[in-house]
Formats: sequence, C-alpha cells, structure tokens
Amino acid sequence: MSPSKKYLFTPGPAPVPPEVLLEMSRPIIHHRTPEFSAVLDQARERLKPLFGTKQGEAILTASTGTGAMEAAVINLLQPGEQAIFVNGGKFGERWGKLLSTFGIAGHEVKVEWGRAVRPEQIEDALKANPNARAVLVQASETSTCAIHPIAAIGEVTKRRGVMLIVDGITSVGVFEQKMDEWGVDAFVTGSQKALMLPPGLGAVAMSQRALDTAKSNKTPRFYFDLLKELKAQRDEHTTAWTAPVSLVFGLNKSLELIHAETLPRVYARHQVMAEATREAGKALGLRLIAPDNPAPGVTGILVPDGIDGGKVVKFMRDTLGVGVQGGQDQMKGKLVRIGHMGHLSPFDMLVAVSAFEIALAQAGAKINHGVGVAAVQARLARSI
Amino acid sequence: MSPSKKYLFTPGPAPVPPEVLLEMSRPIIHHRTPEFSAVLDQARERLKPLFGTKQGEAILTASTGTGAMEAAVINLLQPGEQAIFVNGGKFGERWGKLLSTFGIAGHEVKVEWGRAVRPEQIEDALKANPNARAVLVQASETSTCAIHPIAAIGEVTKRRGVMLIVDGITSVGVFEQKMDEWGVDAFVTGSQKALMLPPGLGAVAMSQRALDTAKSNKTPRFYFDLLKELKAQRDEHTTAWTAPVSLVFGLNKSLELIHAETLPRVYARHQVMAEATREAGKALGLRLIAPDNPAPGVTGILVPDGIDGGKVVKFMRDTLGVGVQGGQDQMKGKLVRIGHMGHLSPFDMLVAVSAFEIALAQAGAKINHGVGVAAVQARLARSI
Repeated sequence: MSPSKKYLFTPGPAPVPPEVLLEMSRPIIHHRTPEFSAVLDQARERLKPLFGTKQGEAILTASTGTGAMEAAVINLLQPGEQAIFVNGGKFGERWGKLLSTFGIAGHEVKVEWGRAVRPEQIEDALKANPNARAVLVQASETSTCAIHPIAAIGEVTKRRGVMLIVDGITSVGVFEQKMDEWGVDAFVTGSQKALMLPPGLGAVAMSQRALDTAKSNKTPRFYFDLLKELKAQRDEHTTAWTAPVSLVFGLNKSLELIHAETLPRVYARHQVMAEATREAGKALGLRLIAPDNPAPGVTGILVPDGIDGGKVVKFMRDTLGVGVQGGQDQMKGKLVRIGHMGHLSPFDMLVAVSAFEIALAQAGAKINHGVGVAAVQARLARSI
Repeated sequence: MSPSKKYLFTPGPAPVPPEVLLEMSRPIIHHRTPEFSAVLDQARERLKPLFGTKQGEAILTASTGTGAMEAAVINLLQPGEQAIFVNGGKFGERWGKLLSTFGIAGHEVKVEWGRAVRPEQIEDALKANPNARAVLVQASETSTCAIHPIAAIGEVTKRRGVMLIVDGITSVGVFEQKMDEWGVDAFVTGSQKALMLPPGLGAVAMSQRALDTAKSNKTPRFYFDLLKELKAQRDEHTTAWTAPVSLVFGLNKSLELIHAETLPRVYARHQVMAEATREAGKALGLRLIAPDNPAPGVTGILVPDGIDGGKVVKFMRDTLGVGVQGGQDQMKGKLVRIGHMGHLSPFDMLVAVSAFEIALAQAGAKINHGVGVAAVQARLARSI
C-alpha cells in the first residue's frame, strides 16, 4: 500500500496546519524590531488562557520541552534542596533525572504505569519529607497515556505551602488547565503537541511566587535564566537571546486558529477523538493501559498477548503510511499509542483505527475487520 | 517610501532562501524514523566541511547560538577550573559571563573594540595563568565586525596543550575554517547566519580531545549534555531530545544549496560583498570600525561625528524597508553594521549602500549621492 499521503498520529510531533507552515515561511525579520515585538506580545498573551492563567507570565525559550523542564527546575530549586517528584512513566522519571543532575534531593512517589498518583501519596511524601520545597508532576504522562489529578495535588501543595511544578507538555492546549486556580507555580509546555507547531519552542508559565523564588535561587544558569528572559520579553518586548523568529510567527498564527475555533471546542474535539479511539479498542476486545484516567491527548491500547506491538507500529508506518508510537521501556512491544493532538479532525481517527486493525491482523491477531472503525463512527455520530 | 518589499542585512538573523522556507514547510515527521535519520545523518555530514573538519563530530542542539556556546563551556570546563577568554566585543564578553556563571575562573584578555587579539597576548595570558585549561575566543566578533586570528592562536594553544574553544557563529560557512588544522576543540555555530536558516538551531563540532574531556567533566548538565546528544546522533541516528524537525529539514536543504554553489564560491561571494561595502564606506569618506581585520560576514562603518547612528538605522528600517544593525554598548549610535550573510547576492549591496547613503543624508551628513553605490558597482565589476 505505502501511499504517498502520510498520516501522523504520534503524540508529538503532531501535524502542523498548512496555515501555520505558511506563516512560518514568511521572510525572516530581526527580533529587535517593533514588528517582531507585536507578534511576540500577542503570542504571549494568547498563550495564557491555554495555561489557565491571568497572573502568570508565559516565558518562551528556544528549546524543546525538555529544555523548558530543565528551565523550571534550575530557576526554582537549588543544590541541596529537596523536592517530591511523581514517577509514573518516562517523563516523571525525567523530573527525577533533572533533580539529581542539579544536586537536588528528589523523593520519588512511584506510580504504576498507566495509573494516576493519588493526592494522599503526595500528602504522605510531604509529611515524610517536610523540607521538600516543591512537587513535580506531569499533568499528562505521555508515555503511559494517563493523567494525574493536578487540581487535587494543588490542594495539597497549597495547604502545605510548597511549590507545584507541572509538565503540561501534553495537557496545555489539549484539555482545560487552571494554573491560577490549581496553584501551579511553573507550568511547562512545548510547541510540537497541541500548539500545532514543529518542535523547537518551549514555554514556561510562572506564578508570582515562582518569580520571587527564582530571584534568590543560586543554581547556575545562563541560557535558561527565566528572569532574564522575562525581563526581555515583558519589559523590552523581545527575547534575551536571538528569538526563534519563524516559530514565534507560527505560534502566533496557531494560537489565532485555536482561539478562532475557541478553546472549549478544541478541548471537546480532543475528547471526542480520545473517546472514539478508546471505544474502538474496547470493541476490538483490547485493553487500555490507563483505563481509569486516560489522557485526552493520546490513547494507549495494549496489543493482544503474543503480538509484537513494535511490528504493528512499524507496519502501520512503513506499509500503511500511518505514524503512531509504540511503548517505551517496560511497555516496549506491548503498547500502541495513538495521538489526538495537532491539526487533526475527529474523522482522522477512522484512519488511525483502520490502520491499527489492519496491522493487528497482519501481525496475527484475530480481528473482525471494521469493528473498531464502526465504534469510531458511532462515537463521532454522537458528537454532532 | 516604505516599500512592501523589505531587505534584511542584519548580521543575523539573515535572509532564508525560498527553497529552504519551502523545505521547512514539509509535513512534520516523527524524529525516530528512518526518514528523519537519513536527513539528520546527511545534514551532519554536510556540515563538517564548513567547520573544516574530518574527525570532528557536529552535534546539533535545539537552541540558539548562545545555547550552543553554553553547551561548549559546560561540557568542557568545570567549576574551580580556569580559562582564558578574549573580550574584544559583546560576544567575547559573553564567554566571560558564561565562565563566571558556571564557576570557572575566567582570565580576560581585553582587546579594543574593532581590533584583533594578538597571539602574543594569548601566550602571555597562558604564561601568567599556567593552570588555564582552555582559551575561548570568537573567530568573528559580530559586535565589532572584526576577526581574530584563530590559526595563530591555535599554534599557541597546541604548543601549550590547552583546549581551544571557538565561537564560529559568524565565521562557519562565511569564510574558510580549518578546525582540524587549527586545533579547535569545540567549534560553535548557529543557524541564522551563513547557514541561511531561521534562528533556533545550534551546533557544536567537537574534537576527540573535547569528547574525552567531556567524559570526565563534572559540571551538571542535562539538556545540553553533548555526549548524550552525540550518542543519540551518531549511534542512534536521531536526537537525544525531540528534534527540531523542520529546522533540520531546512538545514539539510540549505547545505545542499551551499555545496551546489561550492564552498569556495560561497566564501568568495561573502568576500566580494564585504569588500564592496568597505570600499563604499571609504568612497563616502567614512571609517571602518575594524580597518585592519574586517570580518567577511559583516561590515561596520562608523557614522560621521555628530550624526546619530541609531536614527540612521531606524530610518533605513522604518522608512526605506532596509534592515541593518547599529552598534551595541559603547558603539551605540556610532556604528552601522551591514551583514553579508544568508541568501544574498553581491548586487544586494547596491541596495544596502544606497539606503545607507540616503539615510545618512537625511540625518544631516554631507553625502554626494551615488558615490558609495558607484564604489560597490566598481568592486562588483572587478569580481566577474
């Protein structure tokens, strides 16, 4: 088959709308000009509702999401300090690695892959480690397709007066986030997910408490000095270092499209895609990795025993032209992850599920062709 | 006047060829696929001749040039160590700030703005500071439009067995660089200059000695861990973190264009543009900031006494649609910098100089209209 028209359902990078690609093709301008400042200011303002913040400051960095995660850690925590991190997947584990790299004692709250952390676990960890200054967690753990209850965790961190640092890379712009209400201090995101951009741009939204903390923070930092960036971006309407001009053009256009669709509709669209895919999995007799707390941005379906999930993913990509992602680490070969982020219509889930069915059958699974696709269709029909 | 067609002669960002903009508009693919690996591998190979290296490893980072400078420092030097840095402008000063941020004692070799460092100064500094482990310098100091003699500095560092860390952000791809021959250990560049790309991609080429040094280096680093990046880029044919896919597409296309033109012709083109602009300045009775060692990538012309260079730059940009850059810090208001990098033809210097003449006259300078333009024309004619 191998058609020349490809589909991309990886949970980042995600498809970029043609309007955004064209906007990014605009001739380059210098980043210290009134023209650029106008775009930067507008993009930063347009970002805020996606974080759910009025007070917070959205600070852009020329980096991928991991760079923005590092920025949050090194601006808010310093060597010798302690922090709690939730490790329920590959990205939670990354918080732990970042903490230990920068000399911060990280107390791990271990969560089974696919499960959500329980707020009591956070409470217990904070009781056991009363000197911990922050809790670091994913709003949506991309590796396990599960979400963590940030609102409830925020209740705990507020009560105990510690900072809350959240990786929102597959939650910001995907479903409703309430930074101010939840008491998030640093909210990290990246360009290549719901922001519908190529990778290469990170953002960190910071609360006033986070900015105050950063002021006295002694961790050495230069490129990712968020106070320097904020001063440049808020006061001088440019970036501290050379701006990734094209990506900022693209971001502003992408946010224009998002707000034109309206956030509630964007969120509902992701939800319909996620539910349609889950129902397809169920109809095919398959299990979800995160049945109780599935992420709206990406659905993880476990392949049947005896089937090599890696081969399914490879067949989908190489023979069918449909990009999805497999499992990482302990889930390698067992999981297929289908993303719902980026420039996607709910109808695209027909394609994703159809390719998944065909690849499963090809790999030797017993599949009643069309059962999954029909489940997608049924869910779409209910969303009219 | 304010025409809708704009010109960009800033010494970065520089104009991007339409072919590259279009290549960057290709649909996004995932970065852990054979298709992406092929592009990444080719781009990394195509980069090497621009650094002048066969042995060196070109490692890409999703960041701007400053991020790549930081990467070089934190991978090769550690807290408590000493290094020599050449401060002959804004970017030399940045080496100093990076060193002190990360706890490395930086011994400054101060150079007057517009001058080149003399190799004896490096020799003296190394004698005075025998524990210095590295020399950090700009191949081309963008703020002063001057070049430093890297070959001669390399003789000194080789003789004394210390590392040589070079900022090649406005030299790599601009004029011939000989990393292996000169003994450069870490050679930094950024995407938005001679690589003819938007900002957002950095690269560091590392010698074997640099890689060995990085192995035992204890400076905390995560996002900019170049060994981790190298392992991913060389052994796994992908990037450690999510790749800036579009910029890597663009880089590969840009390098294809550069090698099709051939490097000697690219370098000659920059040289003609630089000489034409210098001769125009001379014909107008103006002085260069760096008469003895002018950079081929950007020409700095001092405005006449009593003329506000900032106004000249602003008039060129806002009224004439011609972007150039003024002076920074001590040169604020005194300097106009005209870049020769990116998607430019020598003929474009007619436009740059014409706009400069008009803006100077507008600001009150005595200008014989056309004298500079004629000098450009004369130099172009000699280059046939």
